[in-house]
Amino acid sequence: MAAERLVVIGGDAAGMSAASQARRRRGSDDLDIVVFERGRATSYSACGIPYWIGGAVGSEAELIARTPEQHRANDLDVRMRTEVVDIDLSARTVTARSLEDGKDYTQPYDSLMYATGSVPMRPKAEGFDAEGVYGVQVLDDGADLIRELDSGRVERVVVVGGGYIGLELAEACKIRGLDVTVVDLSRTPVGTFDPDIGQFIAEAVENLGITMVLGEAATSVETDDDGRAVAVHIQGGRRLPAELVILGLGVRPNVALAKKAGIPLGSSGGIAVDNRMRTQVEGVWSAGDCVESRHRLSGQRMVVALGTHANKQGRVAGINLGGGYATFPGVIGTAVTKVCDLEVARTGLSEQEADSAGYCFVTASVDSTTKAGYFPGAKPIRVKLIAEKRTGTLLGAQIAGREGAAKRIDTLATAIWNGMGVDEVLGLDLSYAPPFSPVWDPVLIAARKAFEAVEADVRADARAG
Amino acid sequence: MAAERLVVIGGDAAGMSAASQARRRRGSDDLDIVVFERGRATSYSACGIPYWIGGAVGSEAELIARTPEQHRANDLDVRMRTEVVDIDLSARTVTARSLEDGKDYTQPYDSLMYATGSVPMRPKAEGFDAEGVYGVQVLDDGADLIRELDSGRVERVVVVGGGYIGLELAEACKIRGLDVTVVDLSRTPVGTFDPDIGQFIAEAVENLGITMVLGEAATSVETDDDGRAVAVHIQGGRRLPAELVILGLGVRPNVALAKKAGIPLGSSGGIAVDNRMRTQVEGVWSAGDCVESRHRLSGQRMVVALGTHANKQGRVAGINLGGGYATFPGVIGTAVTKVCDLEVARTGLSEQEADSAGYCFVTASVDSTTKAGYFPGAKPIRVKLIAEKRTGTLLGAQIAGREGAAKRIDTLATAIWNGMGVDEVLGLDLSYAPPFSPVWDPVLIAARKAFEAVEADVRADARAG
Repeated sequence: MAAERLVVIGGDAAGMSAASQARRRRGSDDLDIVVFERGRATSYSACGIPYWIGGAVGSEAELIARTPEQHRANDLDVRMRTEVVDIDLSARTVTARSLEDGKDYTQPYDSLMYATGSVPMRPKAEGFDAEGVYGVQVLDDGADLIRELDSGRVERVVVVGGGYIGLELAEACKIRGLDVTVVDLSRTPVGTFDPDIGQFIAEAVENLGITMVLGEAATSVETDDDGRAVAVHIQGGRRLPAELVILGLGVRPNVALAKKAGIPLGSSGGIAVDNRMRTQVEGVWSAGDCVESRHRLSGQRMVVALGTHANKQGRVAGINLGGGYATFPGVIGTAVTKVCDLEVARTGLSEQEADSAGYCFVTASVDSTTKAGYFPGAKPIRVKLIAEKRTGTLLGAQIAGREGAAKRIDTLATAIWNGMGVDEVLGLDLSYAPPFSPVWDPVLIAARKAFEAVEADVRADARAG
Repeated sequence: MAAERLVVIGGDAAGMSAASQARRRRGSDDLDIVVFERGRATSYSACGIPYWIGGAVGSEAELIARTPEQHRANDLDVRMRTEVVDIDLSARTVTARSLEDGKDYTQPYDSLMYATGSVPMRPKAEGFDAEGVYGVQVLDDGADLIRELDSGRVERVVVVGGGYIGLELAEACKIRGLDVTVVDLSRTPVGTFDPDIGQFIAEAVENLGITMVLGEAATSVETDDDGRAVAVHIQGGRRLPAELVILGLGVRPNVALAKKAGIPLGSSGGIAVDNRMRTQVEGVWSAGDCVESRHRLSGQRMVVALGTHANKQGRVAGINLGGGYATFPGVIGTAVTKVCDLEVARTGLSEQEADSAGYCFVTASVDSTTKAGYFPGAKPIRVKLIAEKRTGTLLGAQIAGREGAAKRIDTLATAIWNGMGVDEVLGLDLSYAPPFSPVWDPVLIAARKAFEAVEADVRADARAG
């Protein structure tokens, strides 16, 4: 009997995790696996690109976890610089195009894994597709940007959008000695944080010597006669000269091919999948930045482009493709980033998200230290909690602080995941020794204060009633 | 109506937390609060003493969170240098003795809070009560030890017992330039860790230039004609010369006074309390190092002397004494310490504890990095998990690594607290960005490996069946 055929579109986190897991469970006599990758690298860390640009990471090679050759040694037929340009769901074939010679060929499949990732959001306004406007998503984008920066032609950079990637790239450019401005429509950068925490981010960015233009939209990119970007125009008429414009508006799922083929999308615009990572088309699977996930608190479907989810989802798809059983349990919006020496992290719902999801809640913020206050190297940490009124269920948490602050978000993420109330969080047996935390860990102090806020609210209601 | 009278014995973490919480809820017209403290300080960090000795903390004052004067400003009648020498449960009085003038007086109470803490374990063998043999538990012990070290008379130190405090004190003495030897009966130090993790601790201690004598007991302390310690003798006849001997065998609950009065102890030797911190005697409460707590996994009662529990339990007692309702939910054995730059942490059950508690389990250990492997400053981390066979329930976790490793134990503690299986842990939405973790956080990699171990065990059983 001929081996079954699995075709994987996309050779980064989700695609290669799926391929590798499927191979672990089924040998090449049983399952033939072909992977198409448009770029020059497989299994690389897209999240590491800003650090490569900024110089903290020395070379592209360090960002690559596994090369095509390593995957091939594992019996995966990896075809590089090959783009899938068409999927025929009824014929169960894909059309692959070699980017080397431009030739197309047809590849049949029994199962298809769609793992095309995401593309940077690009405003439809004038000039945003000009030369000198960069979105950074795949490894080749990073190489292109570094080439541009190395050319010596760039002195001024405008980053449009102050999300995670925008700020990481702004810092990288600043480290390279450039004049950097970040433009963001919100009043505080990284809109997934509440403004009180976002305020810390704004200060950290400004302390780096980066100019922030907040509460204003970039309206167009001005180009010279050669069609190259020379300035960004913003609302109200200001003009920011720049030899380089970087898109930092976030990403959207790369679903054009799926849409054309008729693979159904969800309400969020990502590919709709069930918890085993099956799309709504028999035999077609998907994972990574291009799919939508279920938020466990709001119930909403959303696209979260993050390497950690891509790896997990790819693993789940691969186990299922390999004949096993695995599910992806959804997300709760955990994220972390660093701006200079400021660490910020979040999990669960922000105030705005909690409000949209229909929750009534209280908040509590506390300032403490990462180690015992008297211990050398103790750094400031602020923990903010959002708890449901009456039940006290922890809905969200945000942290801002210095070294050693942000990773505490994982404790709170685990608490939210389990539906813990703030009174229960307060009882948690967390580790304590002076080099690691005050005798009340900041997480516990915050839980105590949130508990008091829940209690006070119930009392106020009782009095009012 | 006269105010009710609360008498608190012991003015550190548990006692002062209880007094402060009770005061927050009941004014002095309603509740009169008298606190007796034997020493010279209230509300200090006993856990910080080794760092004061080693010089990382500059002065005693930095270890004091709140002075007697600050407590008095809060309407607490704090009586320093006053030891309670007797409790009459039927008369509801205590006998207090001023350590200044030696005079005794009787103090009546309606409610009694017993918060006497712990005392260092001291072998009954010859010489362990000699001059020059130090146990370090209260702040005054630290001051005494520093005086001794400052005298210049000490060159060689033997620490008997390689538990947390023993090692912290050994390191502090080494930092002061002394010749330090640690003697411990176990094959690896800090017996609450499994030997494979304890091995890392032994290496870190030895790298500091501290001599470890493992698997051998100290049998006696040799004294000179003045009765001062001059050497420690160990099994097999070896003699370790030392001008100073430090007890590092851990602590036992300070229950002599309670026992004499007839306050019942539990099976572990600590005072038996319910989850509201009530003893078995009406009107008598207790909290902190002197009580026993329930281990949530093994169900066993045990004494865990740790400032974080003392504070929480004191708070719970104080809320209840203040007319509120609060409970202490028990412990799961979380602990963390640092030896030079090695960080080690544990939570839940060790292999030996899991075995004693009757669990059948598998283990999984993984080596990873604290940040993305390519990110500057990424440090090694080993995570070991213990999971119940068949159910996959996470029973215990241990971590050893360098900077940024140990605090991850809190995520695992929260997972254990909630009874999560390793497959569920694997699904957790933990924070990821290259400066904070690899794309698979070490906690998740360990969960994945533990899951595979559980799965393999079930398969092996099925084949055998």
